[in-house]
Amino acid sequence: MDSKKVLWSGRFKEGATDATLAFTSSLHTDVKLARYDVLGSIAHAKMLSAQGIISQEDGKEIQKGLKEILLQIEDGTLPIQDSLEDIHSNIEFILTDRIKDAGARLHTARSRNDQVVTDVRMFMRDAILDTIEELIGFEKTLLEVSKDNIDVIVPGFTHVQHAQPVTIGHHFMAHFSRIRRDIERFIESYSRVNVCPLGSAALAGTTYDIDREYTSSLLGFQNPCYNSMDGVSDRDFIAEFLFNSSLCAVHLSSICEELVYWSSQEFAFIEMDDAYATGSSIMPQKKNSDVAELTRGRTGAAIGDLVNILTTMKGLPLTYNRDLQEDKDAMFSSYTRLTSCIKMCSAMIATLSFNKERMLSAASEGFMNATDLADYLVVKGMPFRKAHEVVGGAVRYCIDENKKLEDLTLKELQSFSDLIKEDVFDILPLEKCVNRRKSFGGTSPEIIPVQLDNGHSAVDRQNAFLIGERNIIEQAFDALEK
Amino acid sequence: MDSKKVLWSGRFKEGATDATLAFTSSLHTDVKLARYDVLGSIAHAKMLSAQGIISQEDGKEIQKGLKEILLQIEDGTLPIQDSLEDIHSNIEFILTDRIKDAGARLHTARSRNDQVVTDVRMFMRDAILDTIEELIGFEKTLLEVSKDNIDVIVPGFTHVQHAQPVTIGHHFMAHFSRIRRDIERFIESYSRVNVCPLGSAALAGTTYDIDREYTSSLLGFQNPCYNSMDGVSDRDFIAEFLFNSSLCAVHLSSICEELVYWSSQEFAFIEMDDAYATGSSIMPQKKNSDVAELTRGRTGAAIGDLVNILTTMKGLPLTYNRDLQEDKDAMFSSYTRLTSCIKMCSAMIATLSFNKERMLSAASEGFMNATDLADYLVVKGMPFRKAHEVVGGAVRYCIDENKKLEDLTLKELQSFSDLIKEDVFDILPLEKCVNRRKSFGGTSPEIIPVQLDNGHSAVDRQNAFLIGERNIIEQAFDALEK
Amino acid sequence: MDSKKVLWSGRFKEGATDATLAFTSSLHTDVKLARYDVLGSIAHAKMLSAQGIISQEDGKEIQKGLKEILLQIEDGTLPIQDSLEDIHSNIEFILTDRIKDAGARLHTARSRNDQVVTDVRMFMRDAILDTIEELIGFEKTLLEVSKDNIDVIVPGFTHVQHAQPVTIGHHFMAHFSRIRRDIERFIESYSRVNVCPLGSAALAGTTYDIDREYTSSLLGFQNPCYNSMDGVSDRDFIAEFLFNSSLCAVHLSSICEELVYWSSQEFAFIEMDDAYATGSSIMPQKKNSDVAELTRGRTGAAIGDLVNILTTMKGLPLTYNRDLQEDKDAMFSSYTRLTSCIKMCSAMIATLSFNKERMLSAASEGFMNATDLADYLVVKGMPFRKAHEVVGGAVRYCIDENKKLEDLTLKELQSFSDLIKEDVFDILPLEKCVNRRKSFGGTSPEIIPVQLDNGHSAVDRQNAFLIGERNIIEQAFDALEK
Amino acid sequence: MDSKKVLWSGRFKEGATDATLAFTSSLHTDVKLARYDVLGSIAHAKMLSAQGIISQEDGKEIQKGLKEILLQIEDGTLPIQDSLEDIHSNIEFILTDRIKDAGARLHTARSRNDQVVTDVRMFMRDAILDTIEELIGFEKTLLEVSKDNIDVIVPGFTHVQHAQPVTIGHHFMAHFSRIRRDIERFIESYSRVNVCPLGSAALAGTTYDIDREYTSSLLGFQNPCYNSMDGVSDRDFIAEFLFNSSLCAVHLSSICEELVYWSSQEFAFIEMDDAYATGSSIMPQKKNSDVAELTRGRTGAAIGDLVNILTTMKGLPLTYNRDLQEDKDAMFSSYTRLTSCIKMCSAMIATLSFNKERMLSAASEGFMNATDLADYLVVKGMPFRKAHEVVGGAVRYCIDENKKLEDLTLKELQSFSDLIKEDVFDILPLEKCVNRRKSFGGTSPEIIPVQLDNGHSAVDRQNAFLIGERNIIEQAFDALEK
Repeated sequence: MDSKKVLWSGRFKEGATDATLAFTSSLHTDVKLARYDVLGSIAHAKMLSAQGIISQEDGKEIQKGLKEILLQIEDGTLPIQDSLEDIHSNIEFILTDRIKDAGARLHTARSRNDQVVTDVRMFMRDAILDTIEELIGFEKTLLEVSKDNIDVIVPGFTHVQHAQPVTIGHHFMAHFSRIRRDIERFIESYSRVNVCPLGSAALAGTTYDIDREYTSSLLGFQNPCYNSMDGVSDRDFIAEFLFNSSLCAVHLSSICEELVYWSSQEFAFIEMDDAYATGSSIMPQKKNSDVAELTRGRTGAAIGDLVNILTTMKGLPLTYNRDLQEDKDAMFSSYTRLTSCIKMCSAMIATLSFNKERMLSAASEGFMNATDLADYLVVKGMPFRKAHEVVGGAVRYCIDENKKLEDLTLKELQSFSDLIKEDVFDILPLEKCVNRRKSFGGTSPEIIPVQLDNGHSAVDRQNAFLIGERNIIEQAFDALEK
Repeated sequence: MDSKKVLWSGRFKEGATDATLAFTSSLHTDVKLARYDVLGSIAHAKMLSAQGIISQEDGKEIQKGLKEILLQIEDGTLPIQDSLEDIHSNIEFILTDRIKDAGARLHTARSRNDQVVTDVRMFMRDAILDTIEELIGFEKTLLEVSKDNIDVIVPGFTHVQHAQPVTIGHHFMAHFSRIRRDIERFIESYSRVNVCPLGSAALAGTTYDIDREYTSSLLGFQNPCYNSMDGVSDRDFIAEFLFNSSLCAVHLSSICEELVYWSSQEFAFIEMDDAYATGSSIMPQKKNSDVAELTRGRTGAAIGDLVNILTTMKGLPLTYNRDLQEDKDAMFSSYTRLTSCIKMCSAMIATLSFNKERMLSAASEGFMNATDLADYLVVKGMPFRKAHEVVGGAVRYCIDENKKLEDLTLKELQSFSDLIKEDVFDILPLEKCVNRRKSFGGTSPEIIPVQLDNGHSAVDRQNAFLIGERNIIEQAFDALEK
Repeated sequence: MDSKKVLWSGRFKEGATDATLAFTSSLHTDVKLARYDVLGSIAHAKMLSAQGIISQEDGKEIQKGLKEILLQIEDGTLPIQDSLEDIHSNIEFILTDRIKDAGARLHTARSRNDQVVTDVRMFMRDAILDTIEELIGFEKTLLEVSKDNIDVIVPGFTHVQHAQPVTIGHHFMAHFSRIRRDIERFIESYSRVNVCPLGSAALAGTTYDIDREYTSSLLGFQNPCYNSMDGVSDRDFIAEFLFNSSLCAVHLSSICEELVYWSSQEFAFIEMDDAYATGSSIMPQKKNSDVAELTRGRTGAAIGDLVNILTTMKGLPLTYNRDLQEDKDAMFSSYTRLTSCIKMCSAMIATLSFNKERMLSAASEGFMNATDLADYLVVKGMPFRKAHEVVGGAVRYCIDENKKLEDLTLKELQSFSDLIKEDVFDILPLEKCVNRRKSFGGTSPEIIPVQLDNGHSAVDRQNAFLIGERNIIEQAFDALEK
Repeated sequence: MDSKKVLWSGRFKEGATDATLAFTSSLHTDVKLARYDVLGSIAHAKMLSAQGIISQEDGKEIQKGLKEILLQIEDGTLPIQDSLEDIHSNIEFILTDRIKDAGARLHTARSRNDQVVTDVRMFMRDAILDTIEELIGFEKTLLEVSKDNIDVIVPGFTHVQHAQPVTIGHHFMAHFSRIRRDIERFIESYSRVNVCPLGSAALAGTTYDIDREYTSSLLGFQNPCYNSMDGVSDRDFIAEFLFNSSLCAVHLSSICEELVYWSSQEFAFIEMDDAYATGSSIMPQKKNSDVAELTRGRTGAAIGDLVNILTTMKGLPLTYNRDLQEDKDAMFSSYTRLTSCIKMCSAMIATLSFNKERMLSAASEGFMNATDLADYLVVKGMPFRKAHEVVGGAVRYCIDENKKLEDLTLKELQSFSDLIKEDVFDILPLEKCVNRRKSFGGTSPEIIPVQLDNGHSAVDRQNAFLIGERNIIEQAFDALEK
């Protein structure tokens, strides 16, 4: 049997050249779909024989053949041929080579158009669940770091300038909030992925009396898609995955940006564990935050992948166009890149050493209690805008005199406003600034446990979703494989 | 009173130059937030006085002053000054100029950081609901066009090649499926927008005993945010809006791509209503699909806006950085662009004339019944792969002889396979190809009503969401304004 | 005369609706092309009458009418009507309204397709020259700052970690190198812009005996384009401008990133002049680097504009498609944004205060002389790889002992290698580290003047280009206007 | 010898984990730089010994060792170890393992920072020259197709509507114009790539008395870079390459968009050679333009790669940051993708069959001689605007009557204007419309040879550049290798 005979050669006088086959082949990429492809075919064969479209006998032979192929995929012994343009052709070719006519009946009532996108959706379900799993792990790290450092003071920045003191617990819970939203988005997108296009055939549905509900449930999908033309052309879920991944990457990048600077000699707020840093080939003293920098640097590729797919989708008419083949590279590489970045960031953050003394002493620079002094004046009856101005004057005086607000004498302070009394010194220490910010969502260690509790509940709910969906898939696949 | 005195001048020896103020001003853009800003301030003032942070009297005076400003905003008479860097400063300046000290107390327990992003979220809620409203209108158009053309045959394309005949009803329901998902994404994103950051203050919360739950509900938000640092820095919802808008724009672009080609002399499947076409300054005979082309062309800007915001967010440390000011341009222009494109596309499609004869005759080209012949052979017992090859040979023969499959004699057909009998002529007509594709989601006019019904239910549910959320906002705002 | 009668209404039964005209109108944007449009028309009319295609008399009347319009454009009194879809239609409408038939002859042998892109190219020439002019100003600032701080020591960073000491002069000359390349790219792109498409007509050229060489030279272009279909559809030069602008914006962003951090309390290397900073509405002590942050933040929009135009161009067939109308927004806003950012950055950097003591003391942290110690060992005969390892051990020892390398006693040093002798103390001081790096392009103040001289020559050459091209345009336009 | 001992382990207490090494490793990518790395090291060693920084003996041993490694790279037998983080470490490790101390001296006076970017620049030179070579081949194809079809009529489109008839020769010369500009951009960018950073060391230059001019010329570079900090951090040339590649990809995409549609049953202007098309797994009759579609689809990735690198570069401070490692993936994949797309497009276009009859008959639809009729009226004295309107009326009449302009009787024509005389029939035939457009750059077959000649000259000049630069590199490398 001639493996050069591609699946569609009937109409052609001459075959495509080797150069064309190399150019159009997606085998290097879609080999990752092999397992899903076989499972999809088993489900399809089961349905075909249940509906009497192929004989029971053929149905059994096909399933047996496919299960053998599955074992070979798993142990890496499937004899894949480069001359066949994709993994789907390879599997069908091997099957037909082995079981002859029965194998040649497998492609009844389907097309590669619906077959491939069904495989892609199975992959994508797992990719989303894997990403969620990594992110939940990361959330737990952030919760732990926050709890462990619930009252550790660090300068709170706006514009990379000292603004008001906050705690490390509060700071990392801000990052937690972002990751939590990332997971929500991935969860919501799942229902748009978990839809089965198999049976859409080339684009118009099929004349065979197929049971799409049955194949859909065999593969653990929620339901078959409603429109066959949409079924074969919809790649929205890939764009959505790439966006959710990009935004998540942006969040990781933002954390890493901080960690890179906090590791600098100037900040010196943290020290990375040696396990997440590397050195220099020329400068013996260097310790570089490579994991953080690479995570930041890989965000560009995430955004690039998103632009890629949106640009490709834009302006394509219905239904399948070969341009869509290019979606897979972006999808696979974004998935791999993001999950490894999450894993590494989580490990890196879990092992950070915080230089508490340095952070505290930094926090005492920059007049971070100025707002508290203004608030003090407001409580004493001064309108806020005026208080803001008065304190601005006091700060300017301190700069000129090279003093801190808390170093001023009562007399000096009163030269700016006679509303200032001895009790002003109760509100100026940093700990007070932090502890008194007890408004809902504020930085006071008294109030942060509300955030932590709420965060833990969110993690539990997200985890329940993850386990539930994992089970559905596992049970469906087990039933197909046995 | 000197309007040149910006809100933060206390600490500075010299003011920023005019060039700097022009460079940093966001007034040209954020003037669109004026109404939201006043409403936010009314709610804040109500809460401050309810908590006893300012006096009842001051609270009332502030509210009265703000309501006057609101009226001036609505009738366009608010005296905005370019020398004040944003709309928020303008409003506070005017208020304080009018009611003096009471006005200067408004900014107690808040910062521009939380104030601005609260305004932005109020704008964004309306922007999302407006977009959903336009999209629901578009869905209705698509449902109607589909119903009206449920059995109108058109070539179904893959690779821009004739593949299998489908109906216009089926085709436009494929586009409906995309828009439906777009709305789902906008709806899901809403809960991440509808969160109130007011009271986060600069970044760390505040020392005043504020009631964030109260301001949140006064403004119709679902709940206050959990972390004040996240509250002032979170722009995820803008990125999400820009992505949802981009993907929606990609869908519009895809429809328009089809309509542009379908309007060409070569396709001639449709004619645009004169209302949505324009002519040429030099060629008197031209009728150009400008609305469709511009919609397609404006997709680039949607993707560009998304790249803009993702690029800007990437690598920013916590919390507020001035870079974030730039989010507003992208947000406003994406909103305006997208809603106008949806509106125009909907109107353009509602008034399309379909050239049914031309589409039918086109559909008879390209051997679109070839799959049916292969399926016929399969039913007669031939494995599909073999049938595919046999029909491929018959097609090649037809091309050489310049015939269609249905033109071949039984004898000619039998030269390719003796499984072919007289009954083959029952399955070759185009209508049969369409009508027999009755699998779930298929193109048969018998089965399309399932899609239509399901589509109508979806529209109803989406509409219920829209009305519900509109009501919540309206009631909240009415209470504040009266 | 009915201004509602658009330029192409002849073939249409009904006009486009107002909504369509609003949707398709580009007037809000292309009004910026008004002056170029009139100049282009004057040149066209001159050529038409020189070739005898219109009469001398008509030619004169048209030119007279256009010059009047030009004056009205300059003093802002041209009566522009929103109902006409673009500025080109407005000008022709006004002209024809005033001089009747003669005006109606102006559009002979041209189309809006070639007319508009000719205007755009004239705008783009000026935009490029303006950008170059601003960049040359910025180069001069960088040269001056470098010269003034030729021997001021600052930590040199890799990975945001102290690496080796460098000078401010050297550091800013690195930024100079980038800007210099930016200008080179703008200069090179100029020759692709400076080509005249006028006379390409709609797409195929014209049957009139026009003289394209003549119109081209009247407008100061280098030559007419070679292919009329390319003439009306080429927007490569806009994409190129947007890329050059994006890369330049990336360079500004990179400088600003540094300045934002260098202004932080942690770095404290510099202080911004008050003129380029702003304050906080809540925190009286804040001084924020807003100009730097906004410049950084506006880079996203530059990249977004580039993505916009590339996405729009991709997949458009020849020749003109209405999608291309959208190029102008991106082009205008990128031009305005970039030139203002350059101007502000240049002014901000020219007025920076360097905190030399702080930079020097920072430079003494982080073992920045470790490479020098390794090099010392190499000179004494140790292979570099071994020296690197030995010094790494010494650094680890210093960290544990909380010492600097220069603080170690000879004995301590010799415990790492007995190649170390008394002369080691000659090479460890920071000044020595800097002064001894005299390799070509190195940081030694002795060698930096080579860079400065080379830089000045480059500026001179770039400036000569600028002046030369400005003159050509000015002379051409003067001739047309008088 | 322990290969786990990475190049920088001296200062660290514990090593990075395997997960970190896997995460930070660039070996899978930068193995493509192996040959350049060895050549760079040979040049460096030659210079070190010429300057007396290492002994003549060591210099020779290093060169000998490196040449052996080079042979092993070429025959694929170099024992690369995954545990070493990049190809540069691998090569140095192997060398040192073989020649001991001499090998450990190679890294004197350089750093991986300058070493890697020198390798990248050598790769990039070849990548640019390869791209130019493919593009020149493509230009030749376009020139040939244009010449062969210089008078073949095809509808000329604007807005995908028939506008005016043009020739295939003219049409493909429009595409030629774009490719020609692409090559110009690649050529101009070459001088910014062809600069040698070796000797910049880590960032600040070196204390050794190196001769950078000498290494630069040994490697065939034009000159060493002027600023060492810029030397190690400059990646502008990669961004520029990715932009030039993106714009070129956009041009290919635009051609392919046309070919996809021209291959459709509706257009049927062309037939692809079977070698560049593929079939369908379900529809036996299909012939899909896969090469064209994939080329179009791969443009998204090109733009994505550009966004990737710009996003990554934005906001990075000087000098080297690990984020920059990510540049290589984008660079390598863009290079491979683009050159294969050019090659395939060129072959596909060279083998196109034009369906001349079909194109001619299509050209007779759509009133493409309407402009000619308007021009006729103008010559007879009617102002163009009026003529445009008159012809618009005639076209509307023809549409209602289902006629073409050339089918109207003289009487019918005169009912629109009595300026129309018998001689109108001379200008209405399509051939006349084409042949009479003899303005410079116009579509007349009489005038196209001007374009062809000019095109051939451009190709010759570009080719001379290519050959010249290839020779310089080849001679330099030959000298190093022997």
